[in-house]
Amino acid sequence: MAANKITELFNINYPIVQGGMVWTSGWRLAAAVSNAGGLGVIGAGSMYPELLREHIQKFRKTSKKSFGVNVPLLYPHSEAIMEVIIEEKVPIVFSSAGNPKVWTSSLQQHGIKVAHVVSSVKFALKAEKAGVDAIVTEGFEAGGHNGSTESTTLTLIPVVKQKISVPLIAAGGIATGRGMLAAMTLGADGVQIGSRFVTSNEASSHHNFKEMVVSSEEGDTMLTLKELGCVRLLKNDFYHQIQKLYSEKASLAEVENFLGKGRLRKGIFEGDLKEGKLEIGQISALISEIKPAAEIINEIIEEFNDTSSEVAALKF
Amino acid sequence: MAANKITELFNINYPIVQGGMVWTSGWRLAAAVSNAGGLGVIGAGSMYPELLREHIQKFRKTSKKSFGVNVPLLYPHSEAIMEVIIEEKVPIVFSSAGNPKVWTSSLQQHGIKVAHVVSSVKFALKAEKAGVDAIVTEGFEAGGHNGSTESTTLTLIPVVKQKISVPLIAAGGIATGRGMLAAMTLGADGVQIGSRFVTSNEASSHHNFKEMVVSSEEGDTMLTLKELGCVRLLKNDFYHQIQKLYSEKASLAEVENFLGKGRLRKGIFEGDLKEGKLEIGQISALISEIKPAAEIINEIIEEFNDTSSEVAALKF
Repeated sequence: MAANKITELFNINYPIVQGGMVWTSGWRLAAAVSNAGGLGVIGAGSMYPELLREHIQKFRKTSKKSFGVNVPLLYPHSEAIMEVIIEEKVPIVFSSAGNPKVWTSSLQQHGIKVAHVVSSVKFALKAEKAGVDAIVTEGFEAGGHNGSTESTTLTLIPVVKQKISVPLIAAGGIATGRGMLAAMTLGADGVQIGSRFVTSNEASSHHNFKEMVVSSEEGDTMLTLKELGCVRLLKNDFYHQIQKLYSEKASLAEVENFLGKGRLRKGIFEGDLKEGKLEIGQISALISEIKPAAEIINEIIEEFNDTSSEVAALKF
Repeated sequence: MAANKITELFNINYPIVQGGMVWTSGWRLAAAVSNAGGLGVIGAGSMYPELLREHIQKFRKTSKKSFGVNVPLLYPHSEAIMEVIIEEKVPIVFSSAGNPKVWTSSLQQHGIKVAHVVSSVKFALKAEKAGVDAIVTEGFEAGGHNGSTESTTLTLIPVVKQKISVPLIAAGGIATGRGMLAAMTLGADGVQIGSRFVTSNEASSHHNFKEMVVSSEEGDTMLTLKELGCVRLLKNDFYHQIQKLYSEKASLAEVENFLGKGRLRKGIFEGDLKEGKLEIGQISALISEIKPAAEIINEIIEEFNDTSSEVAALKF
């Protein structure tokens, strides 16, 4: 088995990071992924600090492998979350949505590796300057929060790669072995996969949501709420109501008022497909089955290896 | 040298199609590309029928190789353009922006191969049903006209590939050998490259525009005018004036009135970087030099071959 920058940095078998997704990535999914040779990541963005501690401890009872915790830095409890992470000696933190300068070096002083998620060259340079151990580039096709430059994975990998020297993990639009190989062909050292793991048996997302993801088709997601942080959503009733407000030239306050609170929990965790906020990536169009995370990883690696042999024959 | 579906279909050495771009792709660029082993394409979208005839005849004085003509089907002169194409025995037509049923079979009856450009699975299925010889999938990152589903190349290639059986040419976000290999890893049989050839010596686009393209960076293009057909543009004064109209909640008529006519010619052909409409792809951020089209092709193929050897070693 080949080693590379990401497998060595994170002490894993395959350079596949499972995205730390709200209401989806608890200890159960993270442990299944880590036990199968990838890097499981617990998504702290939908957890109070003490719940995160419980997830970390349950992970450790289920897996002896390496794992990470994803922390959106602008999340109100991020300071208390970081304290739990340090106390529990979590090996790797994926930080996103915030300034990487604030936490990177103090986490590293505790022996924690830090990867930061970016959507543009500008933020990649900031992250490298903050001293992160790896950078995750998240393209326009990714689900959930998204960047304002709208750069796609195909564009973002090579332009960021040109400017940074730390390892690069590509995210956005990757769900298969072919997608993983394409990203590495463009210069990525590894990949972060989100949507595909939403449809794993171990994901804590609601079955209704998983079913909607596997039955979705090309064109069924769209980036919206651009002035409120930009998110990619499945086009359900909730999405269409937002578009109606825009077409009526509603004010920002009216849109915010309509959104209210708890829409992600309602959609992803409680399975309310009409009123919930259903964050998912474009590549959901390619995902057709709910299955165990270990099978997903095995399929991806098998397709990756088969395709790399196939590609070797391509010469002009 | 390997043969594949696209090199055989178009009778060329490399499965690289040069995008037929308005005010950019005349006989000079098309002949340079075809002579270097790719498929040169004359862009009829900015030509009156008799000017197209002149370009076809000049191409033939400069190259004995295969070539194509790109025809936006909604263009007012498309019928007269097709007559010229049939009379001049053009071997290949790339149709876009319109219904592929209207022209495909009558062109094929004259021995002309037809490829149709699509931006979604829905249009790919329509094109296959119309009997086209190949389908060009154009992702969200592509310059100029663009689709409403906003699917990126990374998403679009595999989802279209799953549903069609005719050869697939990937466009949008491809400018290098690595990009070409990534597209073929995802299932494409060949690639269409636009932006990179805008910055060739032989492109008829203005030098000012070429200079702006090579100096542009990640985040410098954006998709806009969504209710008027969707185009990706460099963010110049003209672009910012459009955004100002949107932020003032201008009516569609006000936006159309501001656009006026002749903006593409002004920007791309006359080099007015402030008032012109500057269509270009996201991947312009990766392009840094103006050089001969033949050198571009050689560089792409060399990088493609080197990378396919490199990728062969990737196994987990």
